[in-house]
Parts: sequence; C-alpha cells; structure tokens
Amino acid sequence: MSAQAPPSRIRGFSAAGSTAETTLERTFKTSLSAKEAEADFDVLTKEPHHVGSPYDITLADEIANRFTSFGLDVTRYEYSVLVPWPTERRVDIVAPDTVRLDVDEEKLPGDVWAAKPGILPAYNAYSPSGDVTGDVVYVNYGGPADYDALQQLGISVAGKIVLARYGGGWRGIKPKVAAEHGAIACLIYSDPRDDGFFQGDAYPDGPYRGMGMIQRGSVMDMPTLSGDPSTPGQPSKPGVARLPLDQITTLAKIPVQPMSARQGLELLKRLRGPLAPDAWRGALPVTYHIGAGPAKVHVRLQMDYGQRRLINVVAKITGSEFPDEWVILGSHHDAWVYGAADPESGQTAVINVARGFGRLLTSGWRPRRSVLIASWDGEEPGLLGSSEWVDDLGAELSAKTVAYVNLDPGATGPYFSTSAVHSLAPFLRDVAKSVDADRPGKTLLDRWLNRPRDQALAQPPAPPAVGALGSGSDYSPFLDHLGIAAIDLSMNGPGDNGTYHSLYDDPDWFKRYIDPGFQINVRTSQVTGTTMLRLADADVLPFDYTAYGQQILDYIGEIERSATSQWANGARGLDFQNLRRATQAMIKAGGELTAQGEALTNRAPDSTTHASLARVNRRLMLAERALITPEGLPDRPWFRHVVYAPGLYTGYDVKTMPGIREAVEGKNLSRAAEQAQVAIRALDRAATTLVGSAR
Amino acid sequence: MSAQAPPSRIRGFSAAGSTAETTLERTFKTSLSAKEAEADFDVLTKEPHHVGSPYDITLADEIANRFTSFGLDVTRYEYSVLVPWPTERRVDIVAPDTVRLDVDEEKLPGDVWAAKPGILPAYNAYSPSGDVTGDVVYVNYGGPADYDALQQLGISVAGKIVLARYGGGWRGIKPKVAAEHGAIACLIYSDPRDDGFFQGDAYPDGPYRGMGMIQRGSVMDMPTLSGDPSTPGQPSKPGVARLPLDQITTLAKIPVQPMSARQGLELLKRLRGPLAPDAWRGALPVTYHIGAGPAKVHVRLQMDYGQRRLINVVAKITGSEFPDEWVILGSHHDAWVYGAADPESGQTAVINVARGFGRLLTSGWRPRRSVLIASWDGEEPGLLGSSEWVDDLGAELSAKTVAYVNLDPGATGPYFSTSAVHSLAPFLRDVAKSVDADRPGKTLLDRWLNRPRDQALAQPPAPPAVGALGSGSDYSPFLDHLGIAAIDLSMNGPGDNGTYHSLYDDPDWFKRYIDPGFQINVRTSQVTGTTMLRLADADVLPFDYTAYGQQILDYIGEIERSATSQWANGARGLDFQNLRRATQAMIKAGGELTAQGEALTNRAPDSTTHASLARVNRRLMLAERALITPEGLPDRPWFRHVVYAPGLYTGYDVKTMPGIREAVEGKNLSRAAEQAQVAIRALDRAATTLVGSAR
Repeated sequence: MSAQAPPSRIRGFSAAGSTAETTLERTFKTSLSAKEAEADFDVLTKEPHHVGSPYDITLADEIANRFTSFGLDVTRYEYSVLVPWPTERRVDIVAPDTVRLDVDEEKLPGDVWAAKPGILPAYNAYSPSGDVTGDVVYVNYGGPADYDALQQLGISVAGKIVLARYGGGWRGIKPKVAAEHGAIACLIYSDPRDDGFFQGDAYPDGPYRGMGMIQRGSVMDMPTLSGDPSTPGQPSKPGVARLPLDQITTLAKIPVQPMSARQGLELLKRLRGPLAPDAWRGALPVTYHIGAGPAKVHVRLQMDYGQRRLINVVAKITGSEFPDEWVILGSHHDAWVYGAADPESGQTAVINVARGFGRLLTSGWRPRRSVLIASWDGEEPGLLGSSEWVDDLGAELSAKTVAYVNLDPGATGPYFSTSAVHSLAPFLRDVAKSVDADRPGKTLLDRWLNRPRDQALAQPPAPPAVGALGSGSDYSPFLDHLGIAAIDLSMNGPGDNGTYHSLYDDPDWFKRYIDPGFQINVRTSQVTGTTMLRLADADVLPFDYTAYGQQILDYIGEIERSATSQWANGARGLDFQNLRRATQAMIKAGGELTAQGEALTNRAPDSTTHASLARVNRRLMLAERALITPEGLPDRPWFRHVVYAPGLYTGYDVKTMPGIREAVEGKNLSRAAEQAQVAIRALDRAATTLVGSAR
Repeated sequence: MSAQAPPSRIRGFSAAGSTAETTLERTFKTSLSAKEAEADFDVLTKEPHHVGSPYDITLADEIANRFTSFGLDVTRYEYSVLVPWPTERRVDIVAPDTVRLDVDEEKLPGDVWAAKPGILPAYNAYSPSGDVTGDVVYVNYGGPADYDALQQLGISVAGKIVLARYGGGWRGIKPKVAAEHGAIACLIYSDPRDDGFFQGDAYPDGPYRGMGMIQRGSVMDMPTLSGDPSTPGQPSKPGVARLPLDQITTLAKIPVQPMSARQGLELLKRLRGPLAPDAWRGALPVTYHIGAGPAKVHVRLQMDYGQRRLINVVAKITGSEFPDEWVILGSHHDAWVYGAADPESGQTAVINVARGFGRLLTSGWRPRRSVLIASWDGEEPGLLGSSEWVDDLGAELSAKTVAYVNLDPGATGPYFSTSAVHSLAPFLRDVAKSVDADRPGKTLLDRWLNRPRDQALAQPPAPPAVGALGSGSDYSPFLDHLGIAAIDLSMNGPGDNGTYHSLYDDPDWFKRYIDPGFQINVRTSQVTGTTMLRLADADVLPFDYTAYGQQILDYIGEIERSATSQWANGARGLDFQNLRRATQAMIKAGGELTAQGEALTNRAPDSTTHASLARVNRRLMLAERALITPEGLPDRPWFRHVVYAPGLYTGYDVKTMPGIREAVEGKNLSRAAEQAQVAIRALDRAATTLVGSAR
C-alpha cells in the first residue's frame, strides 16, 4: 500500500481484509492478561539460568510446554557450544599499597536473590585465562577516540593494565582496542555517572546501579562473528569440526574482568599522572587522573572453556495459504543471572503473544503465512542460539523468511521505540499508532520518543524515527548474515538499565521499579502481536522500498560529505553517481511493484489474483536478500549486508553502508571505491529482483 | 595610529617616540624583581585583613610607606562604611532528623593559617539578620532560568529555604531571585563539580577547593548600586546623610549563608521529590533531588551592621606635560581573609609597578600625563573604596581621567586575558604582544586564551578577544557611573579559583600551586606597567573608535536578531537604523580624529603641534564620557553607560547595550524603543565630541 492508503485501510490489506484484521487484532489484544504474564515471568526468573545451567535447561521445557499447551507445534534445536565459565578471578592492588579487590557483586543484606545458589560469578565471557601484573591506566570508555587522546597526552598503555568504564559503546570493543595498543589486561568498572546514583536513586532506593553491583557480559569480537566461536559458519552439532582454542580468532586477546563502582574507585583513588579530560570524569568522589600508576595490579583469571548444552525452542503455526513464507518472532530465555528485565520481560511478552495466537487458533483463525516463535538460548555470551540456528537452517531461512521480529529485553518501560530495515519504517509507524499507550487517548506512536535521559524536565519529543540495526541481539544473524528483513521492538523507560547484567536484575527490582502490574508487558505483547499478525496476514507485504531508498540516499549523502571533506579531490573514484542511480532504480522498481500489489488487492480475489499477489510478495520479500554481498564485508566475511552492520569499533552501534563508510573513516580510498561497487551491484540486484526479470 | 602603523612604531607614538618608549619599557621590565614582589606579598598576606580589621588598617600604612619610599606622592582617602559582620550563624537540620551543620570552614590539621586568630567567619555580607525555618528546595545555581525549570516541574519555593550552588553567575543574584519567588532564606554551597575535586586535586593535594572550605562573599544588590549602600551617590564621610538600615534597598532581602560542599551534601542527601535535571547535578556522591524536603532547616543569623574604617591609598606621579590628564591604576588590598591570590597577587604586582616607576623617576623619566596608583580598601563587600572615591571625586575624575586600569585578583597564572572598552582592544593586543610569556619565544598575545578549563587536553586557542566589562571589581564605578575608559587585566590559570574567598587562599596554597617563584607576578607587573607607560606617554591616545564602533554594531545585530525573533512585526519602533547610523557617525569621526592625530605626530614637535595634539587627545578621551546617559539605566540610575553594564540578573556578566538588551529580554518593547533613543543620543554625542564641534 502506498503512504496514501485511506485511513480505514491497514497498510498491506484490502478494504475487506482491513475490517477483518481490525477485528482480529482487537480480539487478540483484549485476550492478553497481565496475571498470566506475571505467572510466566515468575517461572522464568525463579533461579539463575545462564546458558547450560540446570535451570536454563528446565526453562526450555517450561517454555516448550507452554507453546504446546497453546496449540503450537514445537521443535527443539539443541547445540553444544563453547562457553567459558570462570574458575578463578583475582584482582589485587600490589602498589602503592596492597588491597584485594572484591570481584564479586555486593550481597545486599536480607536480599533473597543475592543469597541464592547457582549465580554465575561476575566475569566477562570469552576473556582468556591469564596472570599479569602492571601499572594501571584509566582510558575512559576505552574506544578508539580515547586512545587518540592518550596519544596526544603522550601516554602509552603498552605493557599496562587499562581501566575502562562501562558505556560509550559495546564492552567487547574495550579489550579489543586495549590489546591493539599493547595493554596486557583490561578492567571494566561501572561508573555511577553512567548508570548509578548520578542518573537516579540506586537500588534498593531506586532502579539504578548500586556501588557494589557488577555488569557481566561478553567480550567476544562479535562485530566480526557471532555464534559459537569454535564453529564459524557451521552449526555446533555433534560431528562438526571445531577449532582448537588457540586457533579461534574472536576471543578477547587479553584478560578482562568487570568491577563494581566501589572497586573502580579504589583504583582511581590510586592513580596520579595527568588529570583526565573533563568528559572522561565520572561521578565517583575522586579527582580522575589517568596514570599510569602508581596503582599497580595483579590480575589472575582462570577460565573453564567448556562445551555447554544450548536449547532453542521454536514453535510454529503453519500458514494456511503460504506455509513456506515464514514470519519469525524471537526472544531469548538465557540470562546472566535472573534476567528479570533482560531478557525475561521480553520472553514473557513473547510467550503471551503465543498464548494469544493460541486463543485465536481456537476461535478458528489461522495465519495465511507460517508464524514461528523462537525462544533462543545462549544469547548473552554471543547470540549463540540464534546464530547456530542460522548456520543450521541458513538455506531454508533464506528461501522462506519474510521477516524476523526481535524483542530483547523488550518490556521495561512506557516508551516505544524500534530499529528495523527501513523498508518497514512506515509499517512500524502504523503499528505503533494502532496500540494504546499508558496515557489516555495516546497511542504508542505518541510515546515513540527517544528514551528521555532525564525525566525531571520534559524534553521535546523526537520525531518517531526508526533506528538502523547495529548488533547486540538475535536479529543480527538474520539480517547481517542472511539478509532477512529484521525488526527490533522495544518498550523502555528510565532506570531500566540500572541493574543491567547484574544479579539484581531480579524480580524484586523489576516489580518494584519497572513493571509492577505487568501492564507494560501486556502492551508489549500487543504491539509485538500486531506486528506479527499484519506480516502474517497481509495481502501485500508492507515493504516500502521508497522509504528504504530515501534512507539509503541519506546515508550516501553523509558518506559523500565525509569523503569529500577528507580527500582534496572530492573522493574521485568513489562512484556516488552510480550509487544514487542504483538506489533510485530500487526505489522505482519497489514503488511500481507495491502499486501493482495494491491494484491486485482491489480485484476479485480469484486464483489468478492470488497467484499474482504471491509473485509480488515473493519479489518484495527477496529483494532484501539481494542486499547481501556473497563475499561479505572486508575483514568479516560472515557479515554480508551492504546497508547495515555493527561498527567494527562500536559493536552495538550501526555503521550504515558499512563497507564504504568504514573504509572512508579508515582513510582507505581504494577500498571505499571498491566497496561502493559492491553496494552498487547489490542495489542493482535488489532492483532487478523487484522488477522481477530475474525470476 | 591606525592598525596599519609600521611595525617599528608603537601605537600612539611617533617614530622617535617609539624608539624611546621601547627603551623605557625595556628598562622598566628588567628592573622588576621577583624577590621584592615576594617580600611585599608576605607582608600583604601575613594576617587576616578584611576591611576595617586591625591588619587591614596596618596594610594601608605598609602600602603608603612603600609608595612614598619609591618617590611617589601619597594621599589617603578615608571613609566610614556600613559593613555587617556576623555575630551568630546557625543552620540546623530539624527534619527528617536533627543535625547541626558546621557553618565554619574546616581547619586542616597542622595548618598554620587556619589556626590564626582574627579570621572573619564564613558569611555573606549584606545578608539581613533572620530566624526562619522551612523545607529545603534545591535550585541549582539559582538563576532566573532555574526558576523557569522549577515552575515547569510545578515546584514553588514560596515559604521555603532554597539551597543553591555557587557558580553560574554572581552570588548576589541567588538570594535576589529566591526572594522574588517568595523564598525565606538562601543557603549557598560550593559543589565540587564547579571548583572542587571534580576539577582537580583538592587542597592540600592540589589547588582546588576541599570539601570543608567555604566561599565568603557579598550579596548586596550590586548591579543596582555599588559602594556603601547607606550613602548612595555620596561619599561616606563624616557629616554625610545616611539612610537608616530599613530604608536601604540594596541589601539582600532574605537571610543568606554560605556552606561547604560537605554540609551541602548533608542537605542534598535529605532531599527527595523530583530528580534534578541532568545539568543541575554536581559531583557530590548523591542522587540530586529537588525537594521540597523532607530536609527542613532552621536558619538563624545575627549580623552586626556597623560602620568600619576604610582607607584608600592613592599615589601620584604628576605628569610633566599634561598634569590634568590622569591615567589611573588600581587594585585592592582588603581581603576576605588572607587573600593570597585575591587580591594580594594583584596588589603585589601593582606595588612592583610603582617600584619600577620609582626607579624610572630616579633615572630622570617623568610621565607626560599624571599617573595615579590606587590601593582600594573594602572591595570585597561591595567595591566600597573605589565607589566612595568616585562619589567623592566624581567631577574631577570625569574631567581628567584618560583611563582606569584594574588588576583583581591579577597574578594567578600563565594565561593573559583582558576585558576593556573596545576602543582599547587593538591597543591591548599590541601591549600583550610586547611582553614575553613563560614559554620561550612566546608573548602574552600567544598566551591570550580563554582560561582552558581542562589542562589535560590541549584545546584550540580562542582568538584573543577583548571581553566586555560587566562588574565584580573596582573598574565598575569608573566605567559604569562616570564613563571612564576602563581596562581589567588578568593573568590566570587552572586552579587559581580553587580557594576563592576561603581562608585557604593563603600564602602556603599560593606558593605551592599558583606562583612559587613569583615569575607570574613579575610578568603581570610587566604587562600592567607597559599598559600604564603607553597610556601616560602616548603622543596620540590609542583609542580606536573604529574598533569600538564595529563591536557596537555587532551588539546591535545581536539585539536586532533577538528582537525580531521575539516580535512578529520585526520589533517595529525599535530604531535599529538610527542606532547604526549613529554608530557609523562615531566610527567616521573617530577614524578621522585618529588620522588627524597621526598626521600631527609626523610634524615637527613645535608648540602648535603640541597644542593641536592636546586637543585631539582631549576629544579622544572625552568621547567615552559621552556614552554616559545622565538619567541612568532603567531601575538603576547610578549605572549610566549605554554600552556596558553588569546584567541585573547576571551580576558579573556584562549586558552590552544594557538598556535596550534587557528591555528586549524582558519583552518590554516600548522600553526597548525608548532605550534605543537614549543610546542613539549618546552615540551622537560621542560623534560630536570626536568631531570637536561641541568644544
């Protein structure tokens, strides 16, 4: 449907289809119960359940049983994945005095969750084992720009141990850049400026991180490869060839250990040397110095690199008309500890979507396309479950998948936001407009703001922009490796990151500060289910290649400005003209195809119309696949999308048109020119796919 | 001289004069001794010496004796001024618990300066006495914009006690705006974000403010009136009529008490209510809430409003050719406690200038114009000494003064900066270029940066812009009341404000962190003396009315943009056309007059030439006086300059074209239009003065 579709029509649906869809969505939305959500949540968060732990394996059953009880067909996909667990973690200050730092999270007195057994100690997954001693250097967030600043100050980290604060990019970048500069270990602490008392009251007085809480997390080189690092490109099943540990290239290169703010303060207090630049200073009561030293620490980490049992649970409702067109919804169930917000708020909402769909099935509905609902395992260490599944089922997924919809963490606040392939931007605005928000008379479109960083003062609402997908959750293998149109949905709010990857992301914290009545959870299921229902039942798939192309033209413009400001002769050789020409061709072909589909919906729904629409939809679906380049991106062949990728040095944040953009940023003109040709070819293929001449 | 004067010529001097002046300046600069400076400094900072205290009176003798010993003629100007001293100060938390807050500065163990008798307790001068109890509201810096934010949040301070942090504008604005909003008392604490450990290591580990140090300071309504508030417009001499206390309008309206960061933390810890906006949060280890309450405090202040003895010391070298043209240099000798940086670093440099001039006198030099060197008393409570002197000698000063040069604090770092009437901007750049900096081959022009806030990372140098004069030191009565061209010189650097108005602005702190070898002091004397010598001996006074006018045109442009964005019909009635016309007329007349003067310097120096030059100089000098409007600025008649004034709600910071600008900001179009006419008349008078048709 065009953007000019009449208001009574739902994008992608005929007039009659719109009426039926509206009724169906209303039935679905009102069927959802907060009480049922809370009951599921209580099961999901009852015990620690990192991938491979006993309760994580129990949860696969719990979730599978629920899906089955709703009337869905369940398949388990089990893999054996390489995940390190820590056996020894010591960080000792050995100069100017001797202090043994506490590498475990503080146990708040009387807190039942802190007292439970089975909590995975605070560590960074895929750190190597190691035993090193060195002077400490404070490196701010530890990104490339921070090392530029250190160089300007004449400070080298070679042979030193860097102290980085969490934030400012994905944590895995910190040890990666530190190692590239010769550091021998990396300590990462949570500064209260970023998620602690500076942002708001700390737990238990408020939702923010306390001085003794620690953020766990993976430090695998995920912008290069996700999934089991010992089986790149292959599913981690029995019999598959596995790389020995010393041949794996995506582990962190130096020992990495996370720390609490309280322990970070102990280190910062013992640093002298230059005053840290203004922007490097956090909220700890100390004058921030860079060092090196006099703090010298001894870091000793022992990691048990073992194979762990990983179980994805995938439920399916086979489509009535197009069983081989799949619309997939996914969230993960493994957590670092209890994972109340991350991921179980989202997993709960997804289970409730499945329950709602089950009720629709009972009332006689069947989706026209197949609906798959996946509960991933092993997301936290490295998107293991989804990546192994993509490695396992790649060809089938590539042939059949219309779209992948992700929820992680998912249901942690009143604000709605989403990142997606930009062909789905107009569709997502429509979906948000169709779901009521927590304020009377407001929809989620009204609440679609950038998360306000500061609740005390109202900020002007940002226009509801659909973000570009970087990485950090399970959409990544679908989009980046297979070229499947992906959507990441989010309901979020202030404070919801306060206990991120801490044991205190637990039910008490969650029910006190995040979603006491599970109303946010129900609303999350509503918007997620509506997204799924529309994709599964649309007459014409709601891919808008005009919106997509306009966004790509914006990206090309950004890169051109950057390139022409960098190279005197205006980046000659970088073929911006043909990039624009190819994008315009895609826009034109997509617009014509959607118009063709729209015309078909106005015709009598006979078998000819049906077959024509099926052909239109197939082309709309497969055009995204054309944006994959077979050879992959430079230095990371597993990432193949020419429009979206996580930055090699940002990790979470996207680099759009990554091949060209990162070459321009890296001042590599010949590579930029070559990558422009790669993108032109991909855009040309997309246009060809939309025109249909290729099939 | 025009900006195109040959490099061998000094601005304002003939070719021959330039050669002699260069030699003279070299002789002066090399005569200065750091040892002598330090010896003076040690005397100036030996005991506490707030205005009227025994050692303050001793210092008048010490300074007078020095000036006399250098061969200068000394006059003492004594006044009796109303200055409150505190007799009782109590701030008690009475809810949610009871805590007596320490309103005295922390005594660092073993610190000899903290242990001395005679220290004026920490207080805010011109607070009324009072005894009030109320809930506390945190108001950030307590400026008008902060109250806009509070209103947006629905928080009223009526009947409450506000807690403001120091900074963000002059302290006297805080109780003024608080009282306007109905607050019953005002507590002001020093947040370490602004001058404490966040900025750098705290004393004694570094120069920044410790958690127990308190900033004293005046809270008189100085943007309305400076000087003894009981004798507005009159010198506070025996027999002058004095307002009774209850008729003085410029005292603070509510009790005000300064606090340390440590005590501020005690209050902030006890505030709930909305989270403070991001920009309001300081560096204390607490989540900043606004309140009101639950902290409730009882404030009891008893002030002894007595008359104190004030002694200005003014030394004079009578000019050989133009004894009735005065070039005045001033700094103050009273301090809140020891005043090592503020003011004695500057007072020391000024004494050394006098010493250097004395040596020049011995070698046969006499200035062509009279040089006056003033040591003010009572600057800290309210520019008392300078203001009373201006009230005392107004007519004579107005008739005779070429320029007033101020140094306060003066000599606290390697960076040079200056604010001045913009007719002197090119002159000041020349002066800065003629004095060597602390880096080899660099002059003070090279070091003329905005004070870098962050020493750790080099920042790009700001262009050496001459600031506009607001208020906060003794140049204000000269410029703002009399229309005397004024210059405020400063050598400054990081950390120099760390102990501002604390007892720890003492010799130990100063010699450890600010100017250990008194080299900065010598350099300050060099640039100050050079400024004075050139003004005293110039053939043509170096007032550049083209530069002045261009700056005024910039200000007019700013105001026009602001007015036209505020009023739909483009601020019709606000006569920007004639403002520009009058400014252009001043530029033209000034340019012609300077060219005329320059031509005269190339003529034989006979008596006709001499008389002509004297007439040119007189017009150059008096044109500044024309920028005074007799009726004064709206609501503050004592302030009369149409180009410069401190903002009524900024205090230190200037509002240029204040009559028009503040009316535009206050959305008062008719007043703005009227004030534009006032400015046009003043600019026309200046042009007329420069043309010479008026005399």
